[in-house]
Amino acid sequence: MEVRIDPWDYRLIQEYDKLFTVFGIQPIDNIPRRELLKHHFFTRRIIFGHRDFDKWLEALVKGEKVIVLTGFMPSGTPHLGTAMVFEELKYFQSIGAQVKIVIADAEAYAVRREDRDLTIKFGLEFVKHALAWGLNPEKTEFYFQTAMREAYYRLIQMFSRKITMAEMEAIYGDLSPAKVVSALTQVADILHPQLEEFGGFKHVLVPVGVDQDPHLRLARDVADRFEGELGLTRPSSTYHKLLRGLDGNKMSKSRPDFAIFLDESEETIRKKIAMALTGGRATAEEQRRLGGEPWKCMVFELYTYFLLDDKELNEIREDCLKGRILCGECKKIAFEKLVEKIREHKKRYMEINENLAIDRIVRKPSF
Amino acid sequence: MEVRIDPWDYRLIQEYDKLFTVFGIQPIDNIPRRELLKHHFFTRRIIFGHRDFDKWLEALVKGEKVIVLTGFMPSGTPHLGTAMVFEELKYFQSIGAQVKIVIADAEAYAVRREDRDLTIKFGLEFVKHALAWGLNPEKTEFYFQTAMREAYYRLIQMFSRKITMAEMEAIYGDLSPAKVVSALTQVADILHPQLEEFGGFKHVLVPVGVDQDPHLRLARDVADRFEGELGLTRPSSTYHKLLRGLDGNKMSKSRPDFAIFLDESEETIRKKIAMALTGGRATAEEQRRLGGEPWKCMVFELYTYFLLDDKELNEIREDCLKGRILCGECKKIAFEKLVEKIREHKKRYMEINENLAIDRIVRKPSF
Repeated sequence: MEVRIDPWDYRLIQEYDKLFTVFGIQPIDNIPRRELLKHHFFTRRIIFGHRDFDKWLEALVKGEKVIVLTGFMPSGTPHLGTAMVFEELKYFQSIGAQVKIVIADAEAYAVRREDRDLTIKFGLEFVKHALAWGLNPEKTEFYFQTAMREAYYRLIQMFSRKITMAEMEAIYGDLSPAKVVSALTQVADILHPQLEEFGGFKHVLVPVGVDQDPHLRLARDVADRFEGELGLTRPSSTYHKLLRGLDGNKMSKSRPDFAIFLDESEETIRKKIAMALTGGRATAEEQRRLGGEPWKCMVFELYTYFLLDDKELNEIREDCLKGRILCGECKKIAFEKLVEKIREHKKRYMEINENLAIDRIVRKPSF
Repeated sequence: MEVRIDPWDYRLIQEYDKLFTVFGIQPIDNIPRRELLKHHFFTRRIIFGHRDFDKWLEALVKGEKVIVLTGFMPSGTPHLGTAMVFEELKYFQSIGAQVKIVIADAEAYAVRREDRDLTIKFGLEFVKHALAWGLNPEKTEFYFQTAMREAYYRLIQMFSRKITMAEMEAIYGDLSPAKVVSALTQVADILHPQLEEFGGFKHVLVPVGVDQDPHLRLARDVADRFEGELGLTRPSSTYHKLLRGLDGNKMSKSRPDFAIFLDESEETIRKKIAMALTGGRATAEEQRRLGGEPWKCMVFELYTYFLLDDKELNEIREDCLKGRILCGECKKIAFEKLVEKIREHKKRYMEINENLAIDRIVRKPSF
């Protein structure tokens, strides 16, 4: 059977193990220098796989130039699914990496025909939220994709010449002209920081959900073919499990009732948590007898990604499994932890919003 | 049988009539306002077909904004095949049109990996030759494609979203990623002058060889789909028969022995004309008896495109058909006419080379 990952399809990828065997993604567990990776995203295997992450880590340790690169399509206030990437970037910064963030406004305009002023506004909002989450403005470069059109167009033209349609189809499945242009744009995004005109060679790490792996695979192929001409090397990548929304599907702004946004009010958080999918049983009696199923529970997912340290997480897991805590009580704990987290975020956001000379850290958009 | 025109294949298109029936190109003969088209390219049906040229002419007559747009990939000194397009542009200028010329340096770099300085040098040479041929610098805008990358990238991204792969394949046949990008670039070239940021709506005419018609067809489809959003209308186009080289195949710099370049020395012209393919017979005796076959003759082709007025052309044709003139003598006449034409061109070129503030009329390249 043919298995293919589609970056334009947002369904969840359920069977992570297949990724190791079919696509050659490496499990994160046996990586050398594992001791450097203390963040709970690693210890809890939320970041579960990688390609050449060991090489990137080795370069970091040796003091070579390393960056972490990621892109976002801004569309209103970020939710926790986005914050999860902020969290990753923040961690990589803490161990010594520079961060470069692409705001995919060109793509946003092409895909959604969104009003340009609105896209820029969303983009700047996004920057503020990223900083509020704790990214270090001294170590973070934000840029709008539209400001890069000239360079990207050149790269797309060059890259397109050494890739066949069959190769792209093997990676992406059926193609449209838009997908060809979009995929080549993603590759330009991923590879450009290595070029002379963008500061010269550095080791690039791209932390993504596995739905984005096709772009990484294409970027690796392109890097191989332009090794001589442009001095490109393969990017490294890590793969995280996508945060699920409160209904158990991928958290997405297209289903806002099941997402937690970073500016969410206390009252809305209460309502959303109240209706979250849990691993509870049909009746309280049954749950006390059989225990809950935390692996099915979106509240437990929030705990795992954001809200509890290892000790707390283990305790609540045990309590759940043994039927010592029911969903109502558990949701109350989650609500309080989450409200506190969002409140702190909003406070930092307000400070940043008042004090930040945002122009200084963002490469301007152009239309 | 499937018939397809391939803009990436440079073979001659032999059967022009098929173009009318299969591709919907209109014959130039029955165009209204035919009386405006006095140039011998029209009267001799070197320009033999069109799409919506009547609409463009009508707009010209009404005093609306009209331009003629064409593109060249610079690669050394132009030859007479290129000069033929200069001649067309000059004529359209003489009846009131503005001219806009794209120097496809981005494409040149992507396709041929040519040295950039060399490409720019060739591009500027090309501009000087165009002006030397008689294009009016006041009515001609030259620009390097690379200077347009930002706008083109945006347009390519937008256009790609409303075109399917099947539609592109129906026009171009098998596609590669490079062909997708290149075709969309051509469409951006053709359509951009209508946009607000490039001076707002104008009627665009693109005079081409029929090998370039696929780009026109794609541009027309795209224009239809962005009529509402961007106010685009279909470009008009005219189709000329491609000038053949002295060996009977398309004149091309890749077979320099059979092309006449605009800086050709007298001695080289002599040698090249001497070995030109003619419509002569096996022996002089036979030719005197049967007459020559001017329709097979590359010297007659030069007469028709460039060297003789109607009266002279008819006389030499009659003399040939009736066996009153043999190829040697005829080549001598062609040689003298051609040397005179090239000499005058070179003289004007020298004047322009000395006096032209070329920066003022060329939108700069960027790499």
